[in-house]
Amino acid sequence: MAERTIVVLGGALSGPTAAARARELDDRARIVLVERNTRVSYAVGGLAYHLSGEVPAMDALDREDDGFLEAYYRVDVRKRTEAIALDPTARVVTLRDGAGAIERLAYDALIYGLGAASPIPDVPGLAGDNVRALRTMGDLDAVASALAAGARRFAIVGGGPFGLEAADGLVRRGAEVTLLERNATLLPRFGDAVSTAARRALAAKVDLRLGAALASAESANGKVTRLLLADGGSIAVDYVIVAAGVRPRTELLASAGVALHPDGTARIDDRTRTSAEGVFACGSCVSVSQVISGAPVWWPQAAIADKTAQIAGANAAGGDERLMPATGSMLIRIVDLVVARTGLSYDEARVVLGDDVARTVVNARSQDTFFPGAAPMLLELIWQRSTGRVIGVEASGQVGVDRRIDAASSAIAAGLGVEQLAQLDLGYSPPFGAARDPLNVVATAASSEHKGLGATISPGELRTALGSLQLVDVRPEGDDAGGIAGAKRIPITALRDRLDELDAAKPIVVFSASGRHGWLAVRILAQRGFPGARNLAGGLSAFDREGVGG
Amino acid sequence: MAERTIVVLGGALSGPTAAARARELDDRARIVLVERNTRVSYAVGGLAYHLSGEVPAMDALDREDDGFLEAYYRVDVRKRTEAIALDPTARVVTLRDGAGAIERLAYDALIYGLGAASPIPDVPGLAGDNVRALRTMGDLDAVASALAAGARRFAIVGGGPFGLEAADGLVRRGAEVTLLERNATLLPRFGDAVSTAARRALAAKVDLRLGAALASAESANGKVTRLLLADGGSIAVDYVIVAAGVRPRTELLASAGVALHPDGTARIDDRTRTSAEGVFACGSCVSVSQVISGAPVWWPQAAIADKTAQIAGANAAGGDERLMPATGSMLIRIVDLVVARTGLSYDEARVVLGDDVARTVVNARSQDTFFPGAAPMLLELIWQRSTGRVIGVEASGQVGVDRRIDAASSAIAAGLGVEQLAQLDLGYSPPFGAARDPLNVVATAASSEHKGLGATISPGELRTALGSLQLVDVRPEGDDAGGIAGAKRIPITALRDRLDELDAAKPIVVFSASGRHGWLAVRILAQRGFPGARNLAGGLSAFDREGVGG
Repeated sequence: MAERTIVVLGGALSGPTAAARARELDDRARIVLVERNTRVSYAVGGLAYHLSGEVPAMDALDREDDGFLEAYYRVDVRKRTEAIALDPTARVVTLRDGAGAIERLAYDALIYGLGAASPIPDVPGLAGDNVRALRTMGDLDAVASALAAGARRFAIVGGGPFGLEAADGLVRRGAEVTLLERNATLLPRFGDAVSTAARRALAAKVDLRLGAALASAESANGKVTRLLLADGGSIAVDYVIVAAGVRPRTELLASAGVALHPDGTARIDDRTRTSAEGVFACGSCVSVSQVISGAPVWWPQAAIADKTAQIAGANAAGGDERLMPATGSMLIRIVDLVVARTGLSYDEARVVLGDDVARTVVNARSQDTFFPGAAPMLLELIWQRSTGRVIGVEASGQVGVDRRIDAASSAIAAGLGVEQLAQLDLGYSPPFGAARDPLNVVATAASSEHKGLGATISPGELRTALGSLQLVDVRPEGDDAGGIAGAKRIPITALRDRLDELDAAKPIVVFSASGRHGWLAVRILAQRGFPGARNLAGGLSAFDREGVGG
Repeated sequence: MAERTIVVLGGALSGPTAAARARELDDRARIVLVERNTRVSYAVGGLAYHLSGEVPAMDALDREDDGFLEAYYRVDVRKRTEAIALDPTARVVTLRDGAGAIERLAYDALIYGLGAASPIPDVPGLAGDNVRALRTMGDLDAVASALAAGARRFAIVGGGPFGLEAADGLVRRGAEVTLLERNATLLPRFGDAVSTAARRALAAKVDLRLGAALASAESANGKVTRLLLADGGSIAVDYVIVAAGVRPRTELLASAGVALHPDGTARIDDRTRTSAEGVFACGSCVSVSQVISGAPVWWPQAAIADKTAQIAGANAAGGDERLMPATGSMLIRIVDLVVARTGLSYDEARVVLGDDVARTVVNARSQDTFFPGAAPMLLELIWQRSTGRVIGVEASGQVGVDRRIDAASSAIAAGLGVEQLAQLDLGYSPPFGAARDPLNVVATAASSEHKGLGATISPGELRTALGSLQLVDVRPEGDDAGGIAGAKRIPITALRDRLDELDAAKPIVVFSASGRHGWLAVRILAQRGFPGARNLAGGLSAFDREGVGG
């Protein structure tokens, strides 16, 4: 058999990963890697950390130069070259290099990994030397040069993960940042509790404008100088970073008749095969299977791109590897706070499971309370009512958020239930955690609810139902700061003796500071004639948090 | 029905946890908690962190005083009281209080949680005011007072987790520490790779004596002044902390005819029931089910104690909760290093699975290499050859060890395989990790071996087989420091062109710095006439590490 030719389209993360993996499986294949830019293998996810100054040299983000891929993996690297046509029937791809030379390259297998683009939104006047996405090394170079030249007032358009990472980097660098988000909340893939925590953390460091629609931009000398908002406001800027959504770069596939999803991402099977024989796709331009429903989802994230690239590389080289469904884990640093999620959010889960979904929120601590530095950690657990299966986990806090999200991702991928997560034997040492880990705590609360031992009410639900409820503040005596207007005050220690003050005919909601005493109160009430009493999830601190600016 | 009486024996962690949980399930029961000391609910696992100075006030370790248990949970707390007899047939326990008064207390359910003791080994002369275990608040008080009074030279007897935690605390406090371990290695439940890393980290900070048998001790004025070793050596000491094993405090169960395991721990079922009707047991005096075999194991650790206590408390109060098998996660800080494990070690797995066990070791990094502070992380993955199931994971490093162990614990509890772990979608952000997480990296390596794509050899195996092998150093050109004597030098980039220098008739082992290039070399060789070539697991750095003092 003649040696096979594998053509890989796209650099950055997925193309080089796929090429290297293909080489491991087939040492004799001809492997050609095609990249339109001059940098072949770089860390898209690392760009914001050069802005922050944490990664001092931009070159450090170059993971492996083309010389490396050539010497170690014998990959024929074509820089400044674009694929301009694809004929899957003839198995030929047409390339055009920087000098305009055209080559028709026959392949046995093609790996399509052209990623995603961050388009500049169609806003009148929003164009200029100082308007950039932050997706390529070229983008980073431009932004870094502007910073070095004295740009200080940055506007970031978009409150998703990319926008927040850029904000984190620029704030750390000392820039003045205004972040504009069209919607009323940040981080659309997160639930209320953690997205609100993110909003508060960000608002402490940047001028945060939610519900802010960009109307137009004013320019001078080829640079945007001012952004004008639909509400009449305006923002003077030195630089504009656009992070208002991404789109998959799948035009070439589309023109070749390869099947795409309605969102434009490539349709692949669990071997990363597209609808065209011999064409594999991977990276940020494909949809993957979502872990709960198996439905295709577009989660353009580096960790998922890496996994699809490995499978595509192996299978293009004759392997037979299968992609696991993804949990969609996400971890974002917002200056002093870390927020994270895995699995499905409550709203996403409702789309799949309807009313068979519950959520449990707790305010826990990263470590044993006796350990200095133990920091608050908010955890939201989304679970299936009928089976108890863990569907999603979100978290925010200063320390250890990554740890809980990873353990949860593993639990979700494996189909564990809340009872099992409550008992999961996690590593314990006081500098790092608690004997009953925060993840155990939230799962124990969910498990108790699953067993019918006590129900909770979310801050949002409580807010809309306040008038029709009997609200009881069970915080210990002396703990009287804040509170909720109209609540009856019965400290937990006196509850058993003052039950006659409650009206058995009216729904009862109890609350404590963090939810812990409220849970005990619900258990006491359930056994003493008030079986329907509910506990405010996450306690007063969760309710307060939702109250600010919400 | 009359209200039930639940008697809980034992304070510290498990008794109070069980009592509180029992109260949540039964608000009308009479609940009596019996503790021989004056502190009822304290964090045994936190003692070393007061020694270190990190937890400044000893009182902070008191989790909840008896007043709290009485006021919130209406638990009748009996301090300075001991259970001196148990009659499970009559359901009566006999108590003796501090003044010597005797009470025969009838119970409906009894929860036995007397924990474990750290006995002083039977060494001639090893007794005195300055010889203590570190298990109770009284022990901590004594050690802290000695430190305050100027004790500087501490000997710690025992190189298990408790000994290492005490060493960590005392070193941070500035004490001179000698640690004595009878065996040739530290941390008997860990495999070679991580236990060797622990040894190196500890030896940098304390006078570490492995294989050191204590022969006798000399005293003056009621204090031990010198420890004499079997090999003739001696150590002058101000204080001796004994951490040479624990034993379960189950004498009372034994005398009542309740079934114990051969190691003296209480025999419980998955509802924490002992052989005696109405008697539950929990905490550090019981064995639990090991996750892989289901066999009983004694893992006296706070996180497991907490889980058994919750189940015992619920079931004693009429609940029907089941205990999940434990993974035995463990996390230990050794001054500048963190070591951790979960599941079974290679040796433990061999007892259960015989030859159907493999291990894969990699040297990875805590974060993307471009991120400053990215630290080396050693990972060992133990897996089942036939099925690919993940059996155990061990790790050592400076940052993020806790995170990988927890995700692994979850994977092991759920029965995931190496392929699934290789693809597990973990949270990624450059300050915290890598797009291909270290856990993905080690699982990918194991998965490749599972698929037959390339085998590894452990440093220990290589050492014993050196003479009979053809050893090839494939590190890139210029990377020549160190090495292994007798190795042929063929840089990875030249390997394909110099295959004729290899002897096809002799087994080949390749090595690189961390194992990564070695893996590529094995793939190249496998496809070019040398299918049996193996890669040195963890690379040269793992081999070097085992070489020091081993």
